[in-house]
Amino acid sequence: MSRSKRLGIAKKTLDYIPKNIFTIADAKRGDIGNTSSYYADTFFKYLDSDSVTIAPYMGEDSVTPFFSYPNKWVILLALTSNHGALDFQFTTDKNNEELYKKVLRKSQEWGTPENLMYVVGATRAEGIGEVRKLAPEHFFLVPGIGAQGGSLSDVANYGFNSDCGLLVNSSRGIIYASNQSDFAEAAGKAAQELQQEMSKILLEKNF
Amino acid sequence: MSRSKRLGIAKKTLDYIPKNIFTIADAKRGDIGNTSSYYADTFFKYLDSDSVTIAPYMGEDSVTPFFSYPNKWVILLALTSNHGALDFQFTTDKNNEELYKKVLRKSQEWGTPENLMYVVGATRAEGIGEVRKLAPEHFFLVPGIGAQGGSLSDVANYGFNSDCGLLVNSSRGIIYASNQSDFAEAAGKAAQELQQEMSKILLEKNF
Repeated sequence: MSRSKRLGIAKKTLDYIPKNIFTIADAKRGDIGNTSSYYADTFFKYLDSDSVTIAPYMGEDSVTPFFSYPNKWVILLALTSNHGALDFQFTTDKNNEELYKKVLRKSQEWGTPENLMYVVGATRAEGIGEVRKLAPEHFFLVPGIGAQGGSLSDVANYGFNSDCGLLVNSSRGIIYASNQSDFAEAAGKAAQELQQEMSKILLEKNF
Repeated sequence: MSRSKRLGIAKKTLDYIPKNIFTIADAKRGDIGNTSSYYADTFFKYLDSDSVTIAPYMGEDSVTPFFSYPNKWVILLALTSNHGALDFQFTTDKNNEELYKKVLRKSQEWGTPENLMYVVGATRAEGIGEVRKLAPEHFFLVPGIGAQGGSLSDVANYGFNSDCGLLVNSSRGIIYASNQSDFAEAAGKAAQELQQEMSKILLEKNF
């Protein structure tokens, strides 16, 4: 299948999702301001995604163009779930501040809890607690449950704030639940199990 | 025009470029290993681009899948040309190493001068000299000439190695040279002027 056909299907899939479901383009963009403006236009206007994930390496002008769209969200990479997160994100500067904490601090000068969330990997449960201290009001997008091995109860213990403040994501744990003809049932079951686990935790935490 | 039509045109444009011209997908990707593998497949197999730019924030497993394709290149962001480069790339750790230098050092454990280049902005001429010290054999992709204000002679003074080692890029300086009906002539003239300036410098440096 050609890429343009696949993209057409992506667009159709997005259009098929009811408008009250929050959509995330996990695209990890970030470019000079002029280019980021075009990316923002594509994700927020053409695809009408509610949010897009952004990589912080290029700094302020690579991120801020995405804030020009009302009711749309930037989800900035802070502490990622993969092994490579250890290469640069924990680099400590002369003031004893890790890079991911600097990303949290600087980016709060650019966005607000109403238009800026952070990616915080479920595989770094204690890191989630650190991020929560520095960003008490922001929502976190938490990947790494499922295929990557993160624990939902750890994530909840370290990451909840008074509004819950967590969007927990499982991708491969659901979409790769089966590669047989029972795919739909297996994916549905995996999604439901995660939802029930989350429900139980929310109840325990009095939500 | 729909995005899928625009992508079809992008593919046709790439196919129209003669195969002996080096192509760069300036896409600034970088995701967990599993996803980076799919991006690599798209850029190197479907689009048949010779290279793709990669953002380093997510570390090793976000970069290395792109090295599995023979005769293809990773162009890793080191020191970018935009103002936001100042936010994180110059952060100095306890050993007095700036983040962009750590990116250069670590990434040379993953790739070689035969499959790894670096993005080094023309607006940071002295930084180019620093990068050249740390990566004497690697090619640099140098954006920021033209619209962003970088100087070609500064770039050459700081960035040349014994093989030249520079791919100098101007995008907006050429494609936005005119928005009138003389667009083709104006773009051609801008490209030729840059080429002639580079020729003169190459001659002065005895290439």
